[in-house]
Formats: sequence, structure tokens, C-alpha cells
Amino acid sequence: MLGMDRDPQSLKAALDAGVIDAATDFAGAARCDVCLLAIPVRQYAEVLSQLAPHLAATTLITDVGSTKQDVIEVARDALANDIGRFVPGHPIAGREKAGASAAVTDLFAGKNVVLTPLPENVAAAIETVSALWRDCGANVMMMPAATHDTIFAAVSHLPHLLAFALVDELAARPNAKALFSFAASGFRDFTRIASSSPEMWRDIALNNRGPLVREFDLYMAHAKQLRDAVAAGDGEAIDALMHRARDARDRWLAGDLEQFRDESA
Amino acid sequence: MLGMDRDPQSLKAALDAGVIDAATDFAGAARCDVCLLAIPVRQYAEVLSQLAPHLAATTLITDVGSTKQDVIEVARDALANDIGRFVPGHPIAGREKAGASAAVTDLFAGKNVVLTPLPENVAAAIETVSALWRDCGANVMMMPAATHDTIFAAVSHLPHLLAFALVDELAARPNAKALFSFAASGFRDFTRIASSSPEMWRDIALNNRGPLVREFDLYMAHAKQLRDAVAAGDGEAIDALMHRARDARDRWLAGDLEQFRDESA
Repeated sequence: MLGMDRDPQSLKAALDAGVIDAATDFAGAARCDVCLLAIPVRQYAEVLSQLAPHLAATTLITDVGSTKQDVIEVARDALANDIGRFVPGHPIAGREKAGASAAVTDLFAGKNVVLTPLPENVAAAIETVSALWRDCGANVMMMPAATHDTIFAAVSHLPHLLAFALVDELAARPNAKALFSFAASGFRDFTRIASSSPEMWRDIALNNRGPLVREFDLYMAHAKQLRDAVAAGDGEAIDALMHRARDARDRWLAGDLEQFRDESA
Repeated sequence: MLGMDRDPQSLKAALDAGVIDAATDFAGAARCDVCLLAIPVRQYAEVLSQLAPHLAATTLITDVGSTKQDVIEVARDALANDIGRFVPGHPIAGREKAGASAAVTDLFAGKNVVLTPLPENVAAAIETVSALWRDCGANVMMMPAATHDTIFAAVSHLPHLLAFALVDELAARPNAKALFSFAASGFRDFTRIASSSPEMWRDIALNNRGPLVREFDLYMAHAKQLRDAVAAGDGEAIDALMHRARDARDRWLAGDLEQFRDESA
């Protein structure tokens, strides 16, 4: 396992932790069966164009980017006729801490990994990447890139941006010290994802902006309805919304997905 | 320790778990030094009026309600000249699960408990209630009820309502099954508080509606700015907001409150 990073300290941490066997540079790709890109999604153009000249005839590329349509478009430009080497992926697991020092060995056990294969991928390439993830204990699933981007705008990208916005808004208040003195576990968990990498999430927001803006608008319309129900003292509407939400979440936690509608959007 | 509950099963669970020594009814208040109300905030009027005739001359009342101005107003009506018996309180600790079966013994260790004493409370009454909380390991702090209600609208009530709204909005979608199939740990933590008691949170929303609606409006204006920055592809604005939020949260987690402004609001 060869590792490469723009930050020599991260590379050293990965070596020290045994996460990689040796450090390399772009030329090292020639010795690799599979290159795994774990970089902010707006770095793909530069990294892929530097990587491309060094690939061996059979080297595959896959990635862990949180958006897929955008990186596929960039990869088509950078790899041109070699696009079939690129098997796009996204493991649905992560931590709010970045870097090799935050590594945990069982991060992917039992988690979903989404692959969004391209028409140019041969079955063997998809299977090679799938097998690597299965070896980490993950469940590998396939879907179109557009479906991926819509789903994750709703259940991941939007919540992250909502959490960043709340912390930023409160931290700027004249009484911020009092507010944060009394913020407790509910606030801590609600905002955990606001400790995520700003660079990574800025890039995700920019690259998935279409679906994300749509999610913002749907959510804020619903939140506005709840705000108006509170302003009007409409206990019945508030109660109904909270019961629906609590029940849906509890059944989701219990693994009951059959409660949910499954119609093509 | 005597316990009372509207639900006989909860009472039995509390007895079985050793949380209380015996079950009682309103008349049992005559034998109590302190009555602790742990009920939804819109139940105070009825419960206090039924409790009032049974109080011994020295019985104190305190509570764990998440809103304070409203319950003080109700208590003044119900207790009239006896209002000095009521020492309003709010422990800043809780779980999304309710009832005696969710009890944990160290819930209050190291946590803040806010008391909002009344002009009619004698010092000894405030000290009795404070000592009970200190015995549970809590830090007891005092503030005016209006300050309490403003602070908790921002750091507790608003996040709860935002979480309920997100789960409800997504659960109603035609593709809800796909959405919840791929919701992961970020979504789980962001929405943990949406598994809280709907009855309790409906009452909080109704009873603290003034400060809460103000918080909704401030937050949604800020979220709208972020949404507009995403729509405009303004990476600089997104990056700045995310960095501010991440840094503020990380320093808060590290116990650094001195970073925050401390001006009267």
C-alpha cells in the first residue's frame, strides 16, 4: 500500500500508524493496481491530470468523493479515452475529523458504499473495486450518479450546511458567551457535523449546488410552516409534525424502511 | 422518596427500578419537604391547582421545566400568596427517551442546573433546592427567567424544532425509502433530538413562542444567506462561514468560552 499526500506531516502520520507501507508521488501510480482518490472534490481536475501520464496499462482509479456527477465530468476531461479506468465510489461513513491520525480500522464495517459505474467500466473493474470495499466489511450498492447526488444532497449535504449555519449565526451574537455556556448535548449532537472540514464541505456545496439548493428550498419552506404554527400557537399542527417525525425516525433507527414511500421521485 | 405519575405503568417501572420508595397521590404532598415537578410545561396549571390544597406549611416546590417565564406565571395563579414556595429550576441535561425506564444515575453529574429564583423566595428555600441538585453532582447557576428563556430558545428549542422539521419533510417524500436507506451517522446525530417527546416539545414551543419565533427568523435569514451563496457559487463566502463555525465549535468543545462575545444582548 503506497500513500501520497500534499502534506508531508500527514504522510508521516500515515506511515507511523501503519496505514501505508511507503510514501510515493504521482510516478508511483505505475506500480499500483488501484489508485484511491481521497481528496476534496474540486481537486480532481489537477490531481487526475497529474496522475494520468503515470498510469500503468491496467491501473484502475476509484474515489471516495461525496458528489459524483461533477467528478465524473472532470474525470472524463482528464482521462479522455481512459475513462473506463475510473470506477466512481462513495463510502457512506466518515468522521468529522480528517487525516491519518483520525483513522479507525472498522470505519466501514457494516456501512454502505455506493458505486456509480460508468458505461465504459468493464465488469471486472467494477468487481475489483467492489471487492476492496467488501474486504473492509462494507455493503456495496450501485446507482446512477444523478440519483446519488440527489439523495445525498438531502440526507447529508443539507444537514451539514444547516449545522454550519447555526453555529456561525449564534457565535456572532453579542451574548454568544452565555449561549455557548448553556449549550448542552442536544446542541452538541445537532452541530457535530459543523466540526467537519470546511474545505471538503465548501467543495461539496459548490459541486452539488443544483440538488443542494433544491433541498434548501424544500426544507426552509417546511421549517417556515413550523415557525408559523409556533407563531400562531397552533399546538395541533406542531404536535402532528413532531409525532410524524419522531415515529419516522424511531422506526428508521429500528431498521424499518418499509414504512417509507418508494416511488420514483 | 415518593413518586406520582398519571401512568400507573411508569410508576411501577420507577418502583421496580428503585427510583422511588413508594407511590403516592396529590395528598402525599403533605408528607414532602420538596415536590419536584417533572411534567410537560402546559400541565402546570392543573397539577399545581390539585397539589396546592395538600401542601404542608413548609413544603417547597421546584421543577425541571424547559421554559420558565410561562410556568412562573401559571404558578403565581395557582399558588397565589404561597408563590414563595416555588423555586423554578431547569437542569441542562436530558435524554431523548422519557420515563423511569430511561433513568440513568449520573445524568446530572457535571451538568448545569439553572435556577430562576423569584423575589418571594427566601434564601433558605433557594439553598434547599440548590443542595439537592449539588448532591446529584450538578453545578447550580442563577439567572432571571427572561434571560433563561432567550438563551434556551437559541441553543435548545430551535435546534429541536429544526430537527423535527427535517425528518418530517424527508419522510413525506415519494423517494423516502431511498433517502432513509442512505442516511448515515451525520444525519442520525443531527436528528437525534427529533426522537424527543412530541408532547414535551410541543408545549415548550407554545410556551416560549416569542423568543423561539425570533430565533427561527434570525436562523432562517442566515441559512438563506448560505443558500444564496451556494446558488451563486460563492466559494469564498461558503468557506468563510464554514471556517468560522468549525473554529467556534471546536474551541467551545475544548472548553474555551473566552473566544465568545459577552455583551448584554
